[in-house]
Amino acid sequence: MLIVQKFGGTSVGDLDRIQNVANRVSATKKAGNDVVVVVSAMSGETNKLVRYAEHFSANPSRAEMDMLLSSGERVTASLLSIALNEMGFDAVAMTGRKAGIVTDGHHTKARIEDINPEVMNAAVKEGKIIVVAGFQGVNENGDVTTLGRGGSDLSAVAIAGAIKADLCEIYTDVSGIFTTDPRIEPKAKKLNQISYDEMLELASLGAKVLQNRSVELAKKLNVNLVTRTSFSDEEGTLITKEENIMEAPLVSGIALDKNQARISLMGVKDRPGIASDIFTKLSDSDVNIDMIIQNKAHDGTTNIDFTVPVGDLNDAKNIVDAFVASGDIEADSYNEKICKVSVVGVGMKSHSGVAAKAFSTMAKENININMISTSEIKISMAIDEEYAELAVRSLHNAYELDK
Amino acid sequence: MLIVQKFGGTSVGDLDRIQNVANRVSATKKAGNDVVVVVSAMSGETNKLVRYAEHFSANPSRAEMDMLLSSGERVTASLLSIALNEMGFDAVAMTGRKAGIVTDGHHTKARIEDINPEVMNAAVKEGKIIVVAGFQGVNENGDVTTLGRGGSDLSAVAIAGAIKADLCEIYTDVSGIFTTDPRIEPKAKKLNQISYDEMLELASLGAKVLQNRSVELAKKLNVNLVTRTSFSDEEGTLITKEENIMEAPLVSGIALDKNQARISLMGVKDRPGIASDIFTKLSDSDVNIDMIIQNKAHDGTTNIDFTVPVGDLNDAKNIVDAFVASGDIEADSYNEKICKVSVVGVGMKSHSGVAAKAFSTMAKENININMISTSEIKISMAIDEEYAELAVRSLHNAYELDK
Repeated sequence: MLIVQKFGGTSVGDLDRIQNVANRVSATKKAGNDVVVVVSAMSGETNKLVRYAEHFSANPSRAEMDMLLSSGERVTASLLSIALNEMGFDAVAMTGRKAGIVTDGHHTKARIEDINPEVMNAAVKEGKIIVVAGFQGVNENGDVTTLGRGGSDLSAVAIAGAIKADLCEIYTDVSGIFTTDPRIEPKAKKLNQISYDEMLELASLGAKVLQNRSVELAKKLNVNLVTRTSFSDEEGTLITKEENIMEAPLVSGIALDKNQARISLMGVKDRPGIASDIFTKLSDSDVNIDMIIQNKAHDGTTNIDFTVPVGDLNDAKNIVDAFVASGDIEADSYNEKICKVSVVGVGMKSHSGVAAKAFSTMAKENININMISTSEIKISMAIDEEYAELAVRSLHNAYELDK
Repeated sequence: MLIVQKFGGTSVGDLDRIQNVANRVSATKKAGNDVVVVVSAMSGETNKLVRYAEHFSANPSRAEMDMLLSSGERVTASLLSIALNEMGFDAVAMTGRKAGIVTDGHHTKARIEDINPEVMNAAVKEGKIIVVAGFQGVNENGDVTTLGRGGSDLSAVAIAGAIKADLCEIYTDVSGIFTTDPRIEPKAKKLNQISYDEMLELASLGAKVLQNRSVELAKKLNVNLVTRTSFSDEEGTLITKEENIMEAPLVSGIALDKNQARISLMGVKDRPGIASDIFTKLSDSDVNIDMIIQNKAHDGTTNIDFTVPVGDLNDAKNIVDAFVASGDIEADSYNEKICKVSVVGVGMKSHSGVAAKAFSTMAKENININMISTSEIKISMAIDEEYAELAVRSLHNAYELDK
């Protein structure tokens, strides 16, 4: 098999851990596989460099940040390649440039536009182990760019797609994807398999193992993704397309997102296009809106409630307050003490009754559901934050995810 | 003026010092000059990375070492550029690649083959301050290379030559070139000017401010070099071509090299080509031979004495011992307790009596001269190491260098 293995900052956090990674790569290679490794910076390094930059400027220029931050991954890649060479392998370290990763021009959050896999393919053909510095590429001017948060995962997935790898293993400090957060429900079980779409829902709902950008790219490029831990030999979770999953369970997991705030708009004037005005302005300011409820009041005005990530709340407030000031909205209010609990599962597509069970479970626990949103494969409920853990445990139990 | 300013590791050793460098660059720019800055890695960084590599391998692959070590300069260049931008300047950080520095393929000790100054020239024309990561370039495959010890100085000189800078300032922690080492002779005075050739002699004879590779390149490219300190505004020493120096003094300085060993070959067989054999073998092993004396003995055999740097002594011993074993030489002996004291000055070319004064000064102090070698602009004497400081002080006084 041709396997891409990606090791994050914690997995390469010190020299002993880098040696540990070398041993793991060695075992994979010795088992007869071809291996391309993608590494992050040693944990703490990127933050240190960011602190250094912030010492000089609150708003450092982005091209300079990319030249600065891309250095951490180069260090890890060189060291790992040196370790592998010492162990008798023919290893070669590559920068993002050398690996052929071409991005757009958005410094510090570039998007991968293309990968020219010729250099990597040739090295694999020669039996070499390639160690790529993750998180980075070059734009059309040949300047270094970085891919933003989770960038090394993206590098790994994009490379796996470009070289047509059989598997892309993402090593982190957790052993896979769980039916829910084990810190909330100790009976949570690790999933062997999950579909891209379920993973996307779980990730956007608070499961922090993988970022959506990486899962989306894996789905697009049809890359079989595995998340597993670098600290043991435990099998991880395979994220693949739905057709590859033999028996999809009704529900795969329960996700919790505490990072939500609710905005309530009272007495929105009954004027055509006003809701559109409000949400266009919010969207232009990159405020991420999730659930929306709209109720018509008896006096002809409308109440609109919606949720946003807590981080977007201030931007949203400024926009909404302006509508209140202009008289288009009578009043607004905010509630940060809410959370979103979600039930996720591809099985929902073909089974009814999943939503009914969620609502009845909440009712049994006397938890009031403030808002509901659904998709083909998930049901999300906004509830008071104080009931978050109770709701997760009850749902986990109701869908028998510990079995 | 167009000025290249190079700051070494100590000058950019921490964030405050980088800010200090930014202030200095700012002052130069505000005085109406165009500035290209070349920086080293923060002091300690390169050594740390070397230690990291050595943790994994006693003999790490050189291409990987270059990818590893080149990262330190990138960090400093990015940070300095960020600091300058924050101060309101239009600064841009460049890697060696971006600055157009092309080297041969000798990883970890590459030679600069060419500089394509178009990108730098365009940026200067736009009024930008360029901050170049020193010590690095790319080979014809586009892989990062590093220039070896003193590499950032070389980058600066080569860039100054390529962009036709009026001046190349090398900032270190010493304030310039002195008539001799002030730790030996407190009356040593800083030179305002010195010729390339004198500097080359002084550098090869132990003055550690500049390496010969940089001075040779400056001479070749006709770059006016200034060494000065980044810790004060004190003027430094201009190193330039002889014609630019108004009144060349008879003697510019006294150099001391304690890093010498003497090898004595007794009873070298009187066979044609034997001396050539010995010195060819030594040269093939990169043993650096300096002074040579040959005496014919009464029995028809020959004694040959020569000096080598202490670091080359072991290699030299192995070669010489083989000649003893084969009977071509009767015996050999070694003396590490010697040193070389040199009197350097372009004025010697046109004045006689300089050598005579050196010998009489030694005689006055009862210091025995073991070996002598001379060039157009220097007289070197090998003496017992215990007299090193006495010899330096006496010569410094004899040539009135404190005046």
